[in-house]
Amino acid sequence: FESKLPNLGTSIFSQMTALANQHQALNLSQGFPEFDAPDLLKKQLNNYVLEGVNQYAPSSGIVRLQQQIAALIARKYHNNIDYEQQVTVTSGATEALFVAIQALVRDGDEVVVFDPAYDSYQPAIELAGGRSVHVALHAPDYQIDWHAVAEVMSEKTRAIIINTPHNPSGKILKADDIAALKALVKAHNLYVISDEVYEHITFDGATHVSALTDTELFERSFVISSFGKTFHSTGWKMGYCVAPAELMIEFRKIHQYVTFSSFTPAQHALADMLELEPEHVDGLADFYQHKRDLLSNALQDSRFTLLPSEGTYFLLLDYSDVSDLNDVEFCHWLVEQAGVAAVPLSVFYNSPSNDKVIRVCFAKNDDTLLRAAEILCQL
Amino acid sequence: FESKLPNLGTSIFSQMTALANQHQALNLSQGFPEFDAPDLLKKQLNNYVLEGVNQYAPSSGIVRLQQQIAALIARKYHNNIDYEQQVTVTSGATEALFVAIQALVRDGDEVVVFDPAYDSYQPAIELAGGRSVHVALHAPDYQIDWHAVAEVMSEKTRAIIINTPHNPSGKILKADDIAALKALVKAHNLYVISDEVYEHITFDGATHVSALTDTELFERSFVISSFGKTFHSTGWKMGYCVAPAELMIEFRKIHQYVTFSSFTPAQHALADMLELEPEHVDGLADFYQHKRDLLSNALQDSRFTLLPSEGTYFLLLDYSDVSDLNDVEFCHWLVEQAGVAAVPLSVFYNSPSNDKVIRVCFAKNDDTLLRAAEILCQL
Ligand SMILES: CSCCC(=O)C(=O)O
Ligand SMILES: CSCCC(=O)C(=O)O
Repeated sequence: FESKLPNLGTSIFSQMTALANQHQALNLSQGFPEFDAPDLLKKQLNNYVLEGVNQYAPSSGIVRLQQQIAALIARKYHNNIDYEQQVTVTSGATEALFVAIQALVRDGDEVVVFDPAYDSYQPAIELAGGRSVHVALHAPDYQIDWHAVAEVMSEKTRAIIINTPHNPSGKILKADDIAALKALVKAHNLYVISDEVYEHITFDGATHVSALTDTELFERSFVISSFGKTFHSTGWKMGYCVAPAELMIEFRKIHQYVTFSSFTPAQHALADMLELEPEHVDGLADFYQHKRDLLSNALQDSRFTLLPSEGTYFLLLDYSDVSDLNDVEFCHWLVEQAGVAAVPLSVFYNSPSNDKVIRVCFAKNDDTLLRAAEILCQL
Repeated sequence: FESKLPNLGTSIFSQMTALANQHQALNLSQGFPEFDAPDLLKKQLNNYVLEGVNQYAPSSGIVRLQQQIAALIARKYHNNIDYEQQVTVTSGATEALFVAIQALVRDGDEVVVFDPAYDSYQPAIELAGGRSVHVALHAPDYQIDWHAVAEVMSEKTRAIIINTPHNPSGKILKADDIAALKALVKAHNLYVISDEVYEHITFDGATHVSALTDTELFERSFVISSFGKTFHSTGWKMGYCVAPAELMIEFRKIHQYVTFSSFTPAQHALADMLELEPEHVDGLADFYQHKRDLLSNALQDSRFTLLPSEGTYFLLLDYSDVSDLNDVEFCHWLVEQAGVAAVPLSVFYNSPSNDKVIRVCFAKNDDTLLRAAEILCQL
């Protein structure tokens, strides 16, 4: 059987979590929290299940959740969006990304992707008949050179995918970056997919600049977020997309044939949670900054070089002083011999990358982070 | 913004449910039960949520659910499938259909679809760059003329989608049909997508013949089922696909980038349910046969002609003696003026269909069915 995605296998996250389980390693690889979703969220979900709210939700999501998403956006970004026409609930941000890409990309279209990139962008683009054009960013600062981006533009460039705060580097796009993006979008009539799943996880007072906040930019954008990241419930597969009404019409057409709708009781519970405990979202940055700092401090005396993490729950470690192995080999060695699972950075690149960098996830209990650091300090 | 699906709007099911709510009509349109999921299933889901099983499941599903699906297939169809390599849990049968179509259909491929057809097939085929080729079946018996099917075959025919028991007609494919399908598949090297979401809902002792049960046919098939239909939990969006290992590799590649995985606590609860209460699945046919018979008897004295329903939870009504309106107009009149929501059959056809037929869903409380029948008897 001839594959449409011949160069792809099982995702690195699945592979590494499987290896971590097999070797009973501390799993700092796949991005999911070791701690649980908030009590209120779980309690409300259970209530709705018991009460019998178990049939199809509307395809775009229940109204109350759409409203709460709009309210969160108003509170955080001072933007007024139309919850009825501009918000759609999806089965995780992954589905939202897939659908937005399907909505935009036609046969032969090119889409600019920044490497290191989340692994679903490229296959989704290819399944839509498009081609991803990669602009590589590198350690230590992963700064986008917008002149280099301008150089890859062609007649066929349809869209550009940004991700801020950025997985895996933890880099946050600044107002300058957004201005440069906007100029490019206008000059080349591009669309934007803005993956903002870590929007609430920013450190040291850094501001997340959402594509939502610029009226002109938003006119051509799909903005995607994730309840899994925000509410420690990655297994619930709940996310959403916000887009101008015209683009949302197309998004919804496709969404209704990809999954139709998402887990109904979770939608009600998330609406309650957003309404009743706004402090959860507001406290997320501090919660994770504590973990980043704990891990960073515990690694001070190691031979790893820590790269700056401005947001997300990931930290990059340069291991050039620890090992001569390439990053894939090193991660295999690390999970099998040292008992710590991490993700090699080269898998996030389309072309070979020789940076000696691995990604660790610090959405883990303090104890786990300290134990992992202890191991890493001995290398 | 130029749509990739210019002829499509909001799905008829969403439209009709919205109208039913607006007019406080009895909603026999969209296919979902009015009654709740089994207590054990809800209780187990709640337990897993409380215990903190809220992070990503493996992309193909948790092992215990894969095993229970294989066990159900062994018990019901006496087939041994490999749960590890041949079963993938999806976010509803809709996602499974979408992914299977993406896995099979390449640019320019043709896919045979029988009308009346579930509304997601055609857009999914088109998004994959293919073209649906329609063979229309008609009232009263919706029998497939396999010679007519042979005539639409071309060099480009890649796959054929069957749906048994069939939504909306309630028709079940017989051993003869499966034999004819198999001959065609062999002669033209086709693949099969077999939508069997109503596999457990069959009446009067009729046997559901799964594409799984023929070894040669299964080698080229994606077989799709739905926990939502089986466990009265359509809002949970849980389904699965069974396919030979070679096809499943491709299916999983795509699934991991469409949704990645499905609601984790529901996977555990469904595994428990399948293991601990097999009588639920075994009793489903009788449970729904009672409802079909209740509604049919209550409509005996109406001016509607009842078409035979051998399975599913749908019944077709010929309304030629009731109204001269076309079926779309009639359904609007019915929900707005008479207070009963049904689905017009023509929307399930690609080319205009003039049959005066509507679909009603009898997955409703007995009381609702009797009240709806009372209204329909007065027309
Ligand atoms: C869907 S598995 C990947 C989780 C994740 O966001 C990551 O590890 O980067
Ligand atoms: C996903 S909404 C459609 C439900 C259904 O299966 C039907 O009404 O036919």
